[in-house]
Amino acid sequence: MVEIEAALADLVGIDHVLTGDRISDDYGHDEALSVTPARPAAVVRPASTAEVSAVLRLASAHGIPVTARGSGTGLSGAAVPQPGGVVISFERMNAILEIDTANHVAVVQAGVTLAQLDEAATAYGLTYPVYPGELSGSLGGNVATNAGGMRAVRYGVTRSQVLGLQVALPTGEVIRTGGKLAKASTGYDLTQLIVGSEGTLALITEVTLRLYPRPPHQACVLAPYRTVDEVARAVPKVVASGVGPSILEYLDALTLAAITHANQLELGVAAEIRDSAQAYLLVMLESTHADRLEADIERLGELLTELGAIEVYVLPGPSARRLIEAREKTFWTSKAAGANDIVDVVIPRAEIAEFLRVVKEIAHRHSSYVLGCGHAGDGNVHLAVFQADDEVRSALLRELFEAGMKLGGLISGEHGVGRCKKRYFLELTDPVTIELMRRIKFAFDPAGILNPGVLLDPLTA
Amino acid sequence: MVEIEAALADLVGIDHVLTGDRISDDYGHDEALSVTPARPAAVVRPASTAEVSAVLRLASAHGIPVTARGSGTGLSGAAVPQPGGVVISFERMNAILEIDTANHVAVVQAGVTLAQLDEAATAYGLTYPVYPGELSGSLGGNVATNAGGMRAVRYGVTRSQVLGLQVALPTGEVIRTGGKLAKASTGYDLTQLIVGSEGTLALITEVTLRLYPRPPHQACVLAPYRTVDEVARAVPKVVASGVGPSILEYLDALTLAAITHANQLELGVAAEIRDSAQAYLLVMLESTHADRLEADIERLGELLTELGAIEVYVLPGPSARRLIEAREKTFWTSKAAGANDIVDVVIPRAEIAEFLRVVKEIAHRHSSYVLGCGHAGDGNVHLAVFQADDEVRSALLRELFEAGMKLGGLISGEHGVGRCKKRYFLELTDPVTIELMRRIKFAFDPAGILNPGVLLDPLTA
Repeated sequence: MVEIEAALADLVGIDHVLTGDRISDDYGHDEALSVTPARPAAVVRPASTAEVSAVLRLASAHGIPVTARGSGTGLSGAAVPQPGGVVISFERMNAILEIDTANHVAVVQAGVTLAQLDEAATAYGLTYPVYPGELSGSLGGNVATNAGGMRAVRYGVTRSQVLGLQVALPTGEVIRTGGKLAKASTGYDLTQLIVGSEGTLALITEVTLRLYPRPPHQACVLAPYRTVDEVARAVPKVVASGVGPSILEYLDALTLAAITHANQLELGVAAEIRDSAQAYLLVMLESTHADRLEADIERLGELLTELGAIEVYVLPGPSARRLIEAREKTFWTSKAAGANDIVDVVIPRAEIAEFLRVVKEIAHRHSSYVLGCGHAGDGNVHLAVFQADDEVRSALLRELFEAGMKLGGLISGEHGVGRCKKRYFLELTDPVTIELMRRIKFAFDPAGILNPGVLLDPLTA
Repeated sequence: MVEIEAALADLVGIDHVLTGDRISDDYGHDEALSVTPARPAAVVRPASTAEVSAVLRLASAHGIPVTARGSGTGLSGAAVPQPGGVVISFERMNAILEIDTANHVAVVQAGVTLAQLDEAATAYGLTYPVYPGELSGSLGGNVATNAGGMRAVRYGVTRSQVLGLQVALPTGEVIRTGGKLAKASTGYDLTQLIVGSEGTLALITEVTLRLYPRPPHQACVLAPYRTVDEVARAVPKVVASGVGPSILEYLDALTLAAITHANQLELGVAAEIRDSAQAYLLVMLESTHADRLEADIERLGELLTELGAIEVYVLPGPSARRLIEAREKTFWTSKAAGANDIVDVVIPRAEIAEFLRVVKEIAHRHSSYVLGCGHAGDGNVHLAVFQADDEVRSALLRELFEAGMKLGGLISGEHGVGRCKKRYFLELTDPVTIELMRRIKFAFDPAGILNPGVLLDPLTA
């Protein structure tokens, strides 16, 4: 390994090869609650695509496992290295290469964070609309996990924004896919195949992303309902109404209480309403025209009332912003409250009520607490699972995933499979599909050095 | 072959295995102008996914090439069979399985046409927004080529609408990908990989598609400009303005003259304006509110005038509809005018002016005519090439594609590579990318029976 270290130092400079005590614990995990951290043999911090490529060539030649790392904000353990492997950290590849205002496109290195891009785009009146709730997340990581977030109901997830990539293949070759292009029908869509592949097919070095005009006017509505059922039934109607919400979230009463408490938020919901509300709908609208926004908010309020809302609160700017921020931090609130795991099953949005009914029943049967909120417009239900016993929790999770799949859903809407959900993924997915994915993995990475053990079992035992 | 015929008849019924004279010439080609038709040994018309699967199993066992066929409206020769191979025609698999109004989703068999789906969705106030100009096209074919069309500037191409698929693998196994899901991060996105794969990876038997609320109000603006340059420069400004056009097309003066003449359309453009206009911008807006639409049209008119429009015509409903229909039929008009080929290079939308400048120069150098129009908002330039000499035309096309790629573009935005553009695709694309695509093809289709010779060269010589 000493020779490998020396070779790595030749490639990226001795200061950027960390080994032994110089590897901080951070490099051994991401934010997943249920994964065992691991210690890599080395962390390298390349400064360029050429350096990434050179490191991969070396790793390929020696059969060394490689795990890509952005900001480590993932929730599925996909950035947890293979013990003895190499972590390629993209922290130094953090340049915004271009904000192209004529094509409404940003070109960024993989290590650029959402916060950085947001600041740069805002300066041009543009916005990158994916807010997965953690603005320190890197774009490379966002692409690798196909990050979603609250605004996906209007703009789509990361997948919808990625127009092109520069990636390094495990054998070191660098290719470009797509471009500043609204469409393409020129061979297999490698861009879309790599999005969401969790670092197992190729390492993303550069991303070309769609930007949007930044709508200047926003308003936020919070509507308490007596039952989760009513909230779930309201969702398709809000979508069908044509108001085009940019955010459409549901929160159960306990989750709202937890996040408002944790963030010292006073929303002005009267005590007697709080007492009778089991769930809340949170809707944000945005517009280029203040008057249209006002009219739409009014129409939305009427619709929500018709659909059973106990009250409709139009939140003033600062409260709205703070509530959205608090909602984005639900993960941290749940973690602080002692949640043992967080999952994000996705189902057809019309099935939310039925899914939550089944979830309640499963939780009850396993004497566990399962609380949640979710991207209601997307059918993406985030559940915090409180059950300290590993075996009971595993059984419960498996049942949750199975229940989602029975309703036409999948295990994860935006967090990915990673290491944490791999077992369930492999057990519950059609074996023909798994075998096809293994063959695709082999097409990219015949030596199996990229993130072995993530998503699929290592190709060779 | 007689034994194979008998076996096929056992699988789908004797009436649905066509051989010899019972194979009409139609099955030997699609609408591509520059491809040589070929005669398959048999055409089979399965009635179900199970029958498709059984036919593939048989073909796999005997190494028989298989070409899927929807309505045969493709423009790249991807539905031209391998001589001696089998065509699987989806004409009998034409059932709309579900219009799901709660999830805004349609589930259709591969042979359902756009016209059929449009009628069914309209009945529920919904719309499937991809209009590639040929409503007799099948959804299976649309998915296989990632069809685009005029409304892609607002809604995205077919890829953006496909939420899930049922496909038969070449070895006969049937899998489902995705679902009625707005998002997913659960393994490699097989849905997106199969979209645009031109029948070379798997056969699409069923498609789950996103539907949208149908906006009741639409208006159309036609603006003549003195130069193509001015039109091209106007495009990014219209997009940035936030009016959100559902159609944003440019037409050169000759193309507009040809399609209005061919369709006996009178647009009311004064003769002196016609004389000085070199190019036209066609913009459609839509809205749920009549008053907002009116205000937006006014704002758009002012913007277009500022950007140099000689005049701004707001077309009344019937004229607008007829102009859009005529634009959709440009292909037929070009064909009737004797065009020798049609291509649809895609480039970053801000590069349209520069690309058209280079195209003019290339056409001039090869003493050829190249006319066109295009999806300006998408940077997707449709060019009709008039040059009867095969060798000269090939050289010219190669230069067109190269010029597009130099500007960051790709060979095809929505028609696909098929057989017609394969040679250019293989010559002009990075060999590492081609090799990766070959390995992906092999992962799906190790025996190479699916549409051999389309997109890539056959895996075995």
